[in-house]
Amino acid sequence: MNPLPIESSRLQRDIDELAAISEVPPPVGTRVLFSEADLRARAFVKDICQKLQLTIREDAVGNIFARWSGSDTSLPPVATGSHIDAIPNAGRYDGVVGVLGALEAIRALQISGFRPRRGIELIIFTAEEPTRFGIGCLGSRLLAGSLSRERIAVLRDREGHNLDYWRKKASFGAQDLESVALQKNTYSAFIELHIVQGPLLEKENIPIGVVEKIAAPSTLRIELTGLGGHAGAVLMPERHDALLAGAEIALAVEKAALNSGSPDTVATTGVFRIEPGAVNSVPCRAWLEIDLRDTQLPTRDASLSRIEKSVPEICKRRGVEFHIERLNVDEPATADPDLVKTVL
Amino acid sequence: MNPLPIESSRLQRDIDELAAISEVPPPVGTRVLFSEADLRARAFVKDICQKLQLTIREDAVGNIFARWSGSDTSLPPVATGSHIDAIPNAGRYDGVVGVLGALEAIRALQISGFRPRRGIELIIFTAEEPTRFGIGCLGSRLLAGSLSRERIAVLRDREGHNLDYWRKKASFGAQDLESVALQKNTYSAFIELHIVQGPLLEKENIPIGVVEKIAAPSTLRIELTGLGGHAGAVLMPERHDALLAGAEIALAVEKAALNSGSPDTVATTGVFRIEPGAVNSVPCRAWLEIDLRDTQLPTRDASLSRIEKSVPEICKRRGVEFHIERLNVDEPATADPDLVKTVL
Repeated sequence: MNPLPIESSRLQRDIDELAAISEVPPPVGTRVLFSEADLRARAFVKDICQKLQLTIREDAVGNIFARWSGSDTSLPPVATGSHIDAIPNAGRYDGVVGVLGALEAIRALQISGFRPRRGIELIIFTAEEPTRFGIGCLGSRLLAGSLSRERIAVLRDREGHNLDYWRKKASFGAQDLESVALQKNTYSAFIELHIVQGPLLEKENIPIGVVEKIAAPSTLRIELTGLGGHAGAVLMPERHDALLAGAEIALAVEKAALNSGSPDTVATTGVFRIEPGAVNSVPCRAWLEIDLRDTQLPTRDASLSRIEKSVPEICKRRGVEFHIERLNVDEPATADPDLVKTVL
Repeated sequence: MNPLPIESSRLQRDIDELAAISEVPPPVGTRVLFSEADLRARAFVKDICQKLQLTIREDAVGNIFARWSGSDTSLPPVATGSHIDAIPNAGRYDGVVGVLGALEAIRALQISGFRPRRGIELIIFTAEEPTRFGIGCLGSRLLAGSLSRERIAVLRDREGHNLDYWRKKASFGAQDLESVALQKNTYSAFIELHIVQGPLLEKENIPIGVVEKIAAPSTLRIELTGLGGHAGAVLMPERHDALLAGAEIALAVEKAALNSGSPDTVATTGVFRIEPGAVNSVPCRAWLEIDLRDTQLPTRDASLSRIEKSVPEICKRRGVEFHIERLNVDEPATADPDLVKTVL
């Protein structure tokens, strides 16, 4: 086969156009699940899919499937794709490259006259980002049938709205959520193009990396309740400062990753909010969200347990009440070796 | 003189009515300087002043003066008062007791048929709370002529608006700010009724305390700039996490107060915000606001310098950039011994 007529300028234009669809002004972008910007971004991508004459389906949680049918419809298709939701003040490539890059690949294949034997199906996953509900990969978890009804029922965003509220608001409420789960072997393979988000490849001047192992995230939410009061009136020994308990926890999270024994363990306190948040008020409450990842289960588990043990120790010493919730604890995964070889 | 006909139920009703004027639902209250709630609260208090036939004057920063003239107008009046602005989610008594309590005292004196020789002037100080501009006692600082033009010129709130923007919006913009400063000896005395905001009196069942020394606050604002990145992709040794630098600083602030050698040293990190604040993002920026108070200058100065020294140490080790700003550094003050004796 001749080299494909991939046009990076065309792809870049699509990326820039999608980046302009945002809740905040450029150069960063924000597209929280089912926000007005997320819905406009979905419309933008579906419009490209239609121009490429792909067959579009949307499921009950808003996952979008855009299929280029193959000549042998008895074969399960190859799937590719990513997400277009974006965390607050995100860059323009995360997720987007996997969606618009796939569309550019299909466009180039079509122009070259190629006709696939297996179908090629682009999937735009709903809420890969945990921004609204604190749990990432919401759409793909539902596709995999790995979220229990109970787990779904307790999902709430900061305003207290649940998933049903939002999917109905976004016009995906007609079908039951149970209809989202896919049969095993629906696809013959799944491949995703993704921007590298760490500094290593760039530092060593390597143009592309192939993911062999996936360091699945575990997410903890911690709520701390101390005792507020006036910063000028509550003497130091009387204090039960929720922020200071949170500060110690954030440092313990870092320490757990640094001391795990594996260079791949990463732990991050990415959310840290306090109340009341006034300079002359002792903080009475704090909320932390912690992301822990590892490529290996034993060091991941050891770090997770070290973090979870540090919380009661710190809070007991400071007289601060705590509530820990495991939002998700996923296992590290290994990529299909045949696909890895194909890319290499 | 007979005991005054003070009616605590009438005072409580006024307090409850003012508490209902708030940007947030009860039981807490928020009245940030020149917000719609602050303006309504001002109108509520001025209405009571008018019913008591006090003479009202407002200055260029919105300080309110309500005078009950004395029989000898050649004598400087006695001043009393406090503030009605309220930090986010505040209780109903802070400041308010000093304003409405003074009005109840005037009302009771009037009912009893008393006619003062010296005038009695109620002052409602603008922005005792630092919520909007990060500096407390804004109105009284201007009355004392202790804020330089340069200092006023750089005041900004979170949205970037300055003091002139807000005082014009609140219709106090006609006069120059320089007109606010009072002459020395404008008042013969100043006395303020205030709710006790610490647990000590309550613990020892003492009904009233008399302030002999004022532990004036020093306020620092610290801005930290680290390096963001994806929580799954930036390995631990590559990180320059602004939140973790902030966490260490908050703990150093606590330690400085605990180790000052004086039981009266209190230090609080009351504001702690991070960006981007997403669970899977390494925090790239943090803002802290620190309140340090002491009744004695030497221990206050030692703690302040210990805090200010800790910041570069922590930030250098973590590769995080910092900017420290002293929003105010006030000296501890001693109350008028004659007034203290009068109350005792």
